[in-house]
Amino acid sequence: MIKKSLSGLIFVLMMVSVPVFAGWQALPKVAPAPDNNPTTAAKVTLGKMLFMDPRISSTGTVSCNSCHNVMEGGDDSRTFSMGVHGQLGGRNAPTVWNAAFHSVQFWDGRVDLLEDQAKGPITNPVEMGEPDHDHTMVKIKAIPGYKPYFEKAFGRNSMTIDNLAKAIAAFERTLITPDSPYDKYVSGDKHAISAQQIRGMKTFAATGCTSCHSGAAFNGPSMDFGKGFYAKFPTFADNAYNKDYNLSADKGRQEATGKAADAHMFRVPTLRNITDTAPYFHNGSVNSLSEAVRIMAKVQLNKTLNDQEVSDIVAFLSALTGPYPEISMPRLPATTGISLFAGE
Amino acid sequence: MIKKSLSGLIFVLMMVSVPVFAGWQALPKVAPAPDNNPTTAAKVTLGKMLFMDPRISSTGTVSCNSCHNVMEGGDDSRTFSMGVHGQLGGRNAPTVWNAAFHSVQFWDGRVDLLEDQAKGPITNPVEMGEPDHDHTMVKIKAIPGYKPYFEKAFGRNSMTIDNLAKAIAAFERTLITPDSPYDKYVSGDKHAISAQQIRGMKTFAATGCTSCHSGAAFNGPSMDFGKGFYAKFPTFADNAYNKDYNLSADKGRQEATGKAADAHMFRVPTLRNITDTAPYFHNGSVNSLSEAVRIMAKVQLNKTLNDQEVSDIVAFLSALTGPYPEISMPRLPATTGISLFAGE
Repeated sequence: MIKKSLSGLIFVLMMVSVPVFAGWQALPKVAPAPDNNPTTAAKVTLGKMLFMDPRISSTGTVSCNSCHNVMEGGDDSRTFSMGVHGQLGGRNAPTVWNAAFHSVQFWDGRVDLLEDQAKGPITNPVEMGEPDHDHTMVKIKAIPGYKPYFEKAFGRNSMTIDNLAKAIAAFERTLITPDSPYDKYVSGDKHAISAQQIRGMKTFAATGCTSCHSGAAFNGPSMDFGKGFYAKFPTFADNAYNKDYNLSADKGRQEATGKAADAHMFRVPTLRNITDTAPYFHNGSVNSLSEAVRIMAKVQLNKTLNDQEVSDIVAFLSALTGPYPEISMPRLPATTGISLFAGE
Repeated sequence: MIKKSLSGLIFVLMMVSVPVFAGWQALPKVAPAPDNNPTTAAKVTLGKMLFMDPRISSTGTVSCNSCHNVMEGGDDSRTFSMGVHGQLGGRNAPTVWNAAFHSVQFWDGRVDLLEDQAKGPITNPVEMGEPDHDHTMVKIKAIPGYKPYFEKAFGRNSMTIDNLAKAIAAFERTLITPDSPYDKYVSGDKHAISAQQIRGMKTFAATGCTSCHSGAAFNGPSMDFGKGFYAKFPTFADNAYNKDYNLSADKGRQEATGKAADAHMFRVPTLRNITDTAPYFHNGSVNSLSEAVRIMAKVQLNKTLNDQEVSDIVAFLSALTGPYPEISMPRLPATTGISLFAGE
């Protein structure tokens, strides 16, 4: 009896206190890595080269960075990415910044690790368009300058697609943005964010956004690699937004698993650097962060925000951006006196 | 009479001495700039951002760096470049490295300055595909973070296509590679290049390559901006190479000027970093530096080189490569909460 009353009391307390959410966390300064691929400087060096190298693609024109531009918000500003021969993808490119804090990868969480993710676009016909990974590795091996970098990172005879992916993943685990104004604020610097941003933070929690966008990366609770945190999107489909932005056309995770229970389930994306990753949603249909906030409140929580609430939440979200670390350009090793792409 | 005899004597001396060429020059440590656009740090900073920014293109996917990749040899390893929507250009992309040492730009020399060159691809339908420069500047002005960089470089109200081009040109004038092994050698370090490279250097001159590929950048004598150094290519057309590699299909400078005298005239390209810029020639038809050397001797000088001579010249040419300066990646200013390319 006592127990039951107590939980009832706590529930009542939660309902009346603002903010209701006590889980604010700063982003860790180091991203987690799987046991079989600890992040090393040698891997990061190689991974950066491979990430920036368009020669991985069938035409020599599309690198990882083409759609996940680390000079911008880690994406490409487009609704759908443009791969080889100008072909369009079917979902909006997620940012590579802080992707390392996702426990599963892609919008539908169809792979567990960045290592797995890195391999996908290479052979996707509308992205890098390689016929298969063997073809890719024949090309990479034909670039003599890569060999010593693979050896330093992985030892001898290590030029494999798995190690290529491991190196890219290791580089991506350095693409994180701790020390945003929000991080400083929750770490004790009470002047790091503005009064409006603090108000927005409270509104964000009170509205219920934190029921999904919790945790240090605002992508849900911390989970083991391979265990995904998903939400149905849209949850409330009977509204004009769903129709106007065609939100229900994509079956989400069901397309990967074939299970009816996964219909319209999507991995909860990080909100870090969200100011720099327009357009928004899996289908890139919304080109305004304010509108995206308004839609999310309606289609996920069935709430209608007023202009002040939207403005405050957007102000808060801007506190989650950057600073981006400085990155030096890699020098991509040459194929002396010959090209891998002549006549293509 | 005395004068005439003397010049005859000098001519005879030139014919018998090996090397016949005394004009070896190291690359200057600073590239020349036109009077109206002195190179400044503020322009270079802005120019690097603009050079790397794919948002200049109609699709948001093609930057200057896409076809002139400064992480590689300043080109794209392709026969013909691939612009927006996967469209192909008609000539091989010249390297941006040391382009600052050319007195005219493009293969046909149709513009005088890097400032003029930078504007061309923006509105070329198969390159960046912008409808016009005004459209481009509307986009650049819609990126708030660019304004302070323009102001620092050019003063207030300076966001114009001309200043955009000036900034890119200023950045490109920093893309130079002095201190190659060859530069060290001609500056007095007699151990900077190998015995084979020295032999190749002599063969290069004795064969007559220096009649066009002279000067510090091996692109002809130093000339004022706008005054081009051209050669007919091929000069000797009655050979298998011309047919096999379709060298005469392109009318060269005639296509720009309409003058019969300009038929098959091309700007003499730099040979600096030539090891890193395959495939070769205006039509990118030759994917081997050795083969390119062999062909040049035949179609320009009507000489047939033996394998040793080709190998020695290629070794010499490799002494003209790098080192490339380290470049930090620019951070491209955001369009907060909105994209310029949604729905494209």
